[in-house]
Amino acid sequence: MSGPRRGRLVTIEGGEGAGKTTLQGGLERLARSGGREVVTCREPGGTHLGERLREALLGHDAEPPDRVAELLVFTAARAQLVSEVVRPALDRGAIVICDRYIDSTIAYQHHGRGIARADVDAANAVATGGLLPDLTVLLDLPPYEGLRRVGRVGDYLEREPLDFHRRVRAGYLAEAEQHPARWLVLDAVQPPEALAEAAWERIAALPAA
Amino acid sequence: MSGPRRGRLVTIEGGEGAGKTTLQGGLERLARSGGREVVTCREPGGTHLGERLREALLGHDAEPPDRVAELLVFTAARAQLVSEVVRPALDRGAIVICDRYIDSTIAYQHHGRGIARADVDAANAVATGGLLPDLTVLLDLPPYEGLRRVGRVGDYLEREPLDFHRRVRAGYLAEAEQHPARWLVLDAVQPPEALAEAAWERIAALPAA
Repeated sequence: MSGPRRGRLVTIEGGEGAGKTTLQGGLERLARSGGREVVTCREPGGTHLGERLREALLGHDAEPPDRVAELLVFTAARAQLVSEVVRPALDRGAIVICDRYIDSTIAYQHHGRGIARADVDAANAVATGGLLPDLTVLLDLPPYEGLRRVGRVGDYLEREPLDFHRRVRAGYLAEAEQHPARWLVLDAVQPPEALAEAAWERIAALPAA
Repeated sequence: MSGPRRGRLVTIEGGEGAGKTTLQGGLERLARSGGREVVTCREPGGTHLGERLREALLGHDAEPPDRVAELLVFTAARAQLVSEVVRPALDRGAIVICDRYIDSTIAYQHHGRGIARADVDAANAVATGGLLPDLTVLLDLPPYEGLRRVGRVGDYLEREPLDFHRRVRAGYLAEAEQHPARWLVLDAVQPPEALAEAAWERIAALPAA
């Protein structure tokens, strides 16, 4: 790492259809109105290479990959995002709001697919150089409600059985319970404005940059 | 792993233009004439996902990626190849001859790019589940000679400065020296037939499958 980190990294986590993109937009408006530089990004993707990897993995004709290959593609996209976007923005003092980050990999690849936690942690650590979020907002929603909201049969992840999505949700909640200082769990059935305000309150309360 | 491994995994390593594809073809002919099932593959690629990742990384309009992202894309392609091609072939008793494998990552990403050895080893271990080659043939060639043979300015890897390719070569030789039981170092200026015969001699001498 180059010098002290001055910005703040906020990540948004949750299942399909939980409202992550909407919350990201709401937080972006609130942060900008406070005069801060805001950088938003999404995973997998968020960079030229990341979008190419996203297409290679999730493109319309893509078959479900080997679970370890999937783990390594997601973390490859993350490495590019951290190097190209997140670290430079944090070095400038920006608030970075990222739709999915390391905890998606823990929830989906470890809790969902059963890859050993040590392997998931190793891949995350290599990809990020150990960069943790200052705050992680979990939009918690029953999987059947989220998939109903998505309202379509999309990529292979959305086609996973409901039981897979239930394990992912339980995994998220277990992580949040173990690290309450970093996590904020919100009931995603609340109106978007209420969710954005609740999350912004915690962001505003983070130790001064 | 499912049951005892019965086949043999032979990997071919070396710099650009060393003759890896030619040697692979020669070994394939020798092995087939001995009546064995032979499976050939190349990295990155060798599977549908792997070829998509190769294109995402090395496609004509691709810029040099972050070095850690590059590490994780190569190992993602490897994970898919091991799961989809290599392990099933070894379980059938085949001889698998792979153009590049874990040692390319050690030579290029650690010795060439300077990524910590622990990170490279972790990514390789996650990708392969610890599957090592029975024999690794290094086609050793001075980089200027290999790049002259390639005869074109290709992807960003081939455009790396000569010093990078020298570090890769030195890295390969250091690995081979440390693990002589697994490695066979051949002077790649020899005629293709002589190289294939020398490599085949070592393969035929591997402990009975």
